[in-house]
Amino acid sequence: MALDKIEHIGIAVKDLNESNKLFSQLFGEAAYKMEEVESEGVKTSFFKTGPNKIELLEASNENSPIAKFIAKKGEGVHHIAFAVEDIKAEMERLALEGFTLLNTEPKPGADGKLVAFLHPKTTNGVLIELCQDR
Amino acid sequence: MALDKIEHIGIAVKDLNESNKLFSQLFGEAAYKMEEVESEGVKTSFFKTGPNKIELLEASNENSPIAKFIAKKGEGVHHIAFAVEDIKAEMERLALEGFTLLNTEPKPGADGKLVAFLHPKTTNGVLIELCQDR
Repeated sequence: MALDKIEHIGIAVKDLNESNKLFSQLFGEAAYKMEEVESEGVKTSFFKTGPNKIELLEASNENSPIAKFIAKKGEGVHHIAFAVEDIKAEMERLALEGFTLLNTEPKPGADGKLVAFLHPKTTNGVLIELCQDR
Repeated sequence: MALDKIEHIGIAVKDLNESNKLFSQLFGEAAYKMEEVESEGVKTSFFKTGPNKIELLEASNENSPIAKFIAKKGEGVHHIAFAVEDIKAEMERLALEGFTLLNTEPKPGADGKLVAFLHPKTTNGVLIELCQDR
């Protein structure tokens, strides 16, 4: 299969502590991990939901993509990440299919993954992440 | 567990046929089902992605919630649906936790499910669906 399960859904939030409380109530379970990814300008927390995860993202500086997203669209779903076995092969396949990639090489993401993003203009307004275990 | 796996992600699209082509290229596989839900004013298609599904939604009339969503926000992620075993019990639990439910009783949704929605104002801008097999 080209893209496998939904690895996680990334949700942009203004206040990670407040949203951690909210999603703990929703899922009946606390976040199992918090992590800052300095290269992306985000503080994150992760919740398990069956085989999938929810990642909450708060901007850690004003140039963070999450700060820009919230300024433009408000809080809400920021991206959908799909698990892939071979991220380089998938990036090549999708480029050939006409999708626009936002990075030309896989880069380190949260949760110890290698990631790449597809431009939402080529995917019905949805920012899609490919996500491979390292 | 209160909420189980991501049953599906609903994506609002303007042209279901065009988007079916796009998501077939993305997933390397065609939609496995198309279905009209007249009560909700939507035409839908479903893609499998591991244990999860992607549901594309096109408005079938101008009063459809999907038509209103696209007019306001453009194409993109419309809702996240989580599988639950006992939708009535979850609706009660979440109401007690302070979440606002958009329907007071479970209602029939696409794909043979019973569904209920949480107001996005109480969930960081994310429209959340609870989804039980019938």
